Amino acid sequence: MAVYTDVSADELGAFIDGYDIGKLLSYKGIAEGVENSNFLLHTGAGHFILTLYEKRVAEQDLPFFLGLMEHLAARGITCPQPVKNRRGEILGKVAGRPAAIVTFLDGMWMRRIDARHCQALGEALAKLHIAGADFPMTRRNALSVEGWRPLYEACLGRADSVHPGMSETIESELIALEQSWPRNLPSGVIHADLFPDNVFFLGDKLSGLIDFYFACTDMFAYDVSICLNAWCFEADFSYNVTKGQALLAAYAKARPLTDAELDALPLLARGAALRFLLTRLVDWLDRPAGALVRPKSPQEYFRKLRFHQSVKSAADYGITAKALA
Amino acid sequence: MAVYTDVSADELGAFIDGYDIGKLLSYKGIAEGVENSNFLLHTGAGHFILTLYEKRVAEQDLPFFLGLMEHLAARGITCPQPVKNRRGEILGKVAGRPAAIVTFLDGMWMRRIDARHCQALGEALAKLHIAGADFPMTRRNALSVEGWRPLYEACLGRADSVHPGMSETIESELIALEQSWPRNLPSGVIHADLFPDNVFFLGDKLSGLIDFYFACTDMFAYDVSICLNAWCFEADFSYNVTKGQALLAAYAKARPLTDAELDALPLLARGAALRFLLTRLVDWLDRPAGALVRPKSPQEYFRKLRFHQSVKSAADYGITAKALA
Repeated sequence: MAVYTDVSADELGAFIDGYDIGKLLSYKGIAEGVENSNFLLHTGAGHFILTLYEKRVAEQDLPFFLGLMEHLAARGITCPQPVKNRRGEILGKVAGRPAAIVTFLDGMWMRRIDARHCQALGEALAKLHIAGADFPMTRRNALSVEGWRPLYEACLGRADSVHPGMSETIESELIALEQSWPRNLPSGVIHADLFPDNVFFLGDKLSGLIDFYFACTDMFAYDVSICLNAWCFEADFSYNVTKGQALLAAYAKARPLTDAELDALPLLARGAALRFLLTRLVDWLDRPAGALVRPKSPQEYFRKLRFHQSVKSAADYGITAKALA
Repeated sequence: MAVYTDVSADELGAFIDGYDIGKLLSYKGIAEGVENSNFLLHTGAGHFILTLYEKRVAEQDLPFFLGLMEHLAARGITCPQPVKNRRGEILGKVAGRPAAIVTFLDGMWMRRIDARHCQALGEALAKLHIAGADFPMTRRNALSVEGWRPLYEACLGRADSVHPGMSETIESELIALEQSWPRNLPSGVIHADLFPDNVFFLGDKLSGLIDFYFACTDMFAYDVSICLNAWCFEADFSYNVTKGQALLAAYAKARPLTDAELDALPLLARGAALRFLLTRLVDWLDRPAGALVRPKSPQEYFRKLRFHQSVKSAADYGITAKALA
């Protein structure tokens, strides 16, 4: 939960006056998201989300993120749509931060995931990949394999304080992934952070996707493997193959996975687990005293990585090439 | 900012189904308030606030707080109105916490206070006192003079670590206030925490009062002195007599202050400063490592207390008995 930057009513009112969305009637900081400051706005025209981009989001990436949301929304993906101000711009400045207003989406993220949610997610993820295919901009994934070693080095010698043996496991995993990371799988725009809190439901129906601030150009199957990690494990870190099956089958129905993608799935899943293990580890070890945001424990992704290391083929995740035929 | 308790969509949906306010469409934790967990709800019937009462609010006090909001709203005070469920109850349970749904109020709290805000506040405070006069319930002010020494003792010997000499100042002030605290001034329901973040404005017009969870039965002029402390000082802790004048004149116009109240004002203002100094001191000294809420510095109210100790009469705050005649 986070609001890093407070805003005065006068300043925000003046900012809103630059838009054609009526007068500002109220705004409340939202206790969600850990990268940016988010406010729920009520104006004469309805409800909106105002995001102030904090320093962890690079300003030069904002046109990619906001342009992507516009692009996807125009292709039927339910996601926040950037609102243009009277000058036709979608990016402004509030309290010295880059800021954008996007439409408000109804729906709630699921704290308790079941297989039906995983099925809905799989289908939505495939549709996202298809809808993004003709998005003209690209953005390198800074948190892919080349980005992992610097993260590891940032916490060198300290990982074992979180879990004995963690350093050695990460080191050898890094070497393995650097040597064998696939390069030629189908690629395009991926969300790269489609955790349950970024997926809204109304009842059992998926109603929208949010938070595109890690979106980038990378392998589709890597996005799938991020979701397997985020959606298909139980609280005790055991993999739930029913959920995995539901996610993968629904995905493949909308966008068939190639044999090469299926073959690479265990490796990609290890990479996805390592990516979140490393960023959580850095946040955990470097958390400032008195921080307002409690970092997530790296343990969870260490356990998930261990599981993926034991996986022999995509069949262990609940899908086989035969199933797709 | 605070959301201490998260709630699942399933549980909250089932809770909302007990009300006649349509289906739950979305809910977001609000990054405001430090005592309870607050969520903004969107349902088929509109927008509401759900409050989960955390352990600092005593469950047996909730009927007083919620009953007071109903009472005041019925008398034209714009404040959140508790919503009854289908069984006619205004208090339920969510995630093991006592919980209530209240109406959503438009408006924004002012980060930058000017004299017009103080004027509007003074008038609203007087109207609140008048509207509460026939509220049948009472609640002792646990944070009045009898409650201060236990707070002081909870941080005995540690206050000087915040500011050299603070312990001695508090000790002698405590003795003075315990001896001379007034007992026979006009009393009734007071808000007791009417800080700027609990007062909403739309433009320059005061649009509502919120957060009645410190409300109690005590001297009206004590409530006035809490507001003088909270609204009429500048960032450098200097007292702004223009603001004080605006607040006091507007208050007295709606509810004339007696001579005894005016005479007592400096003493009451010292008490109010000491009350917030002590609670902030306890929160500051006892803040747990890794706490999600950054406690407010006790320094501010130490400086305000020092100012009030130098005040000779109510005239120093910007009001005289003559001005009222």
